[in-house]
Amino acid sequence: MNRTEISTLGEFGLIRHLTDKIELKNKSSLKGVGDDAAVLDYKDKLTLVTTDLLLEGIHFDLMYVPLKHLGYKSAIVNFSDIYAMNGRPKQITVALGISKRFSVEDLESFYEGLKLACDIYGVDLVGGDTSASLTGLTISITCLGEVEKGKEVYRSGAKETDLVCVSGDLGSAYMGLQLLEREKHIYKGEKDFTPDFTGKEYLLERQLKPEARKDIIDALEKAGIKPTSMIDISDGLSSELLHISKESNVGCQIYEDRIPIDFQTAAMAEEFNMNLVTAALNGGDDYELLFTVPLSLHERVASIKGIKVIGHITKAALGNYLIGRDGGEVELKAQGWNSLK
Amino acid sequence: MNRTEISTLGEFGLIRHLTDKIELKNKSSLKGVGDDAAVLDYKDKLTLVTTDLLLEGIHFDLMYVPLKHLGYKSAIVNFSDIYAMNGRPKQITVALGISKRFSVEDLESFYEGLKLACDIYGVDLVGGDTSASLTGLTISITCLGEVEKGKEVYRSGAKETDLVCVSGDLGSAYMGLQLLEREKHIYKGEKDFTPDFTGKEYLLERQLKPEARKDIIDALEKAGIKPTSMIDISDGLSSELLHISKESNVGCQIYEDRIPIDFQTAAMAEEFNMNLVTAALNGGDDYELLFTVPLSLHERVASIKGIKVIGHITKAALGNYLIGRDGGEVELKAQGWNSLK
Repeated sequence: MNRTEISTLGEFGLIRHLTDKIELKNKSSLKGVGDDAAVLDYKDKLTLVTTDLLLEGIHFDLMYVPLKHLGYKSAIVNFSDIYAMNGRPKQITVALGISKRFSVEDLESFYEGLKLACDIYGVDLVGGDTSASLTGLTISITCLGEVEKGKEVYRSGAKETDLVCVSGDLGSAYMGLQLLEREKHIYKGEKDFTPDFTGKEYLLERQLKPEARKDIIDALEKAGIKPTSMIDISDGLSSELLHISKESNVGCQIYEDRIPIDFQTAAMAEEFNMNLVTAALNGGDDYELLFTVPLSLHERVASIKGIKVIGHITKAALGNYLIGRDGGEVELKAQGWNSLK
Repeated sequence: MNRTEISTLGEFGLIRHLTDKIELKNKSSLKGVGDDAAVLDYKDKLTLVTTDLLLEGIHFDLMYVPLKHLGYKSAIVNFSDIYAMNGRPKQITVALGISKRFSVEDLESFYEGLKLACDIYGVDLVGGDTSASLTGLTISITCLGEVEKGKEVYRSGAKETDLVCVSGDLGSAYMGLQLLEREKHIYKGEKDFTPDFTGKEYLLERQLKPEARKDIIDALEKAGIKPTSMIDISDGLSSELLHISKESNVGCQIYEDRIPIDFQTAAMAEEFNMNLVTAALNGGDDYELLFTVPLSLHERVASIKGIKVIGHITKAALGNYLIGRDGGEVELKAQGWNSLK
């Protein structure tokens, strides 16, 4: 593969090169990359904005994450935040900090992934910033979205007796990460080592190339369901449920045997001798939607493919509990982010 | 000063702590920090969005930049991009990557500066993300603004015979940086060394605590002037002028003796034995506005305090030139960002 030094293009040349053939897809995107700011026309809809920072060595390891996948995922995690407001992502801006280690081709791969995600989800890349970095790759993405007034869903609307629902399955992305970490350790020093991931493709895909649940937002809309509260699961089910409880001033009970877990996740947990429920409760990177709906909508929500009812909302005083298969109760704890410890 | 480890608060505790008493000032800010996305209501105005990434060791040196100033400046550089579209900044989101070196008090200082800038410029802090970082401080800020439809100003609207105008004075922030760098070198190893900056306060202020030119946007509006093109000067006058020429498909001539330079900048250039014009043309961090207006508005624009007419727009084929005091012509070159070399 060719290696073109970034210095041959310079900052402005680089941005132009990477954002060259980007066509704007959304009516609300009046002016994209190439001025001091992008210009958007939102008329009478609400504008949503979310931002994420991804740092090499903390959020990704380039030893096993291809740059194209990283571009794709960087966009997806932001789209997911917009869907979690019951909105639709429309624009992203991308700021990159790049050390000398990276070539123009590397950044092309990253942008290829970004653009692919944007194409699939109908989002416009409208701006950005590119900087030199002393240490590795820094990715900052901001996503703008829109939602009809009155349709926005916050974390704070859950009510007693509401049903707790979750999309897809949990813990698979975490197991994918464990698998990659193990292979990395095995790989070290062995030149001819080619890891065999047969039968574990789903776990890798969940970790390396996750999707945002546009389909679930579409399905809820089609079914005429507006969740009372919603959040996307990036730090693990426990942590996100506690956000909803805290913001809504309620408690919750969820049932161990209702938590959706894929077969590959279960098999991998056994192979690693890990607790499967812990992985599903505290594993990150799922990007599924966690939401609550009124009890009266039980049949309607339970009949939607890919959504599972896993429990219900209680009074705040009752706390937040997982009811085990044996009927025992375990208090839910946030096990999210603790890299600063 | 106290030092509280960030790990005592955790991610969510830290964000809550830092964004605790933030009150929303703008009608368009419906919901700020604390959900998956901020919710904004822009009705029939255009939404502007700009993003900036600031990395320790590249964009700032914490040896001489106090964190409060850094917070202030991080906000200002983004506001400046919105003003450069003839808009008004309304909201910012802030994403931080933080290594263990930083304490809660450090981040409080940073946020103090951020909030001060937001208060002075009437901007709401509506969201963010906080991450662990392996290496120093990473700051990513996205700013949203608004502008009435038809009042937005791009880089691309300059026309032949238009006047080239600039606000404030140039090169002072760059001289402030040179001064700080010199003192840093002198300081190294000397514990009791206290640098004497008497008579150079303006240079330091321009580098450490710059302002965005809201006053110029206000004054232009009051005078009924809509620039034909505009950009803010962050990488130096030369580089920004070339952006306007390229995007507008024109050329330009500016006059050395018209470039606004402060007395302290001139004195410092002499002390450092540096070329004053080079500093004014290529020094960064000025955050002044560079814009063009039709020739017919000469009197009106020249009578506004703080604005100087420095040249005019020509056909593209004539190129971009600085006319020296002696009448000689020097072609303008972009000397901006080259840290990747």
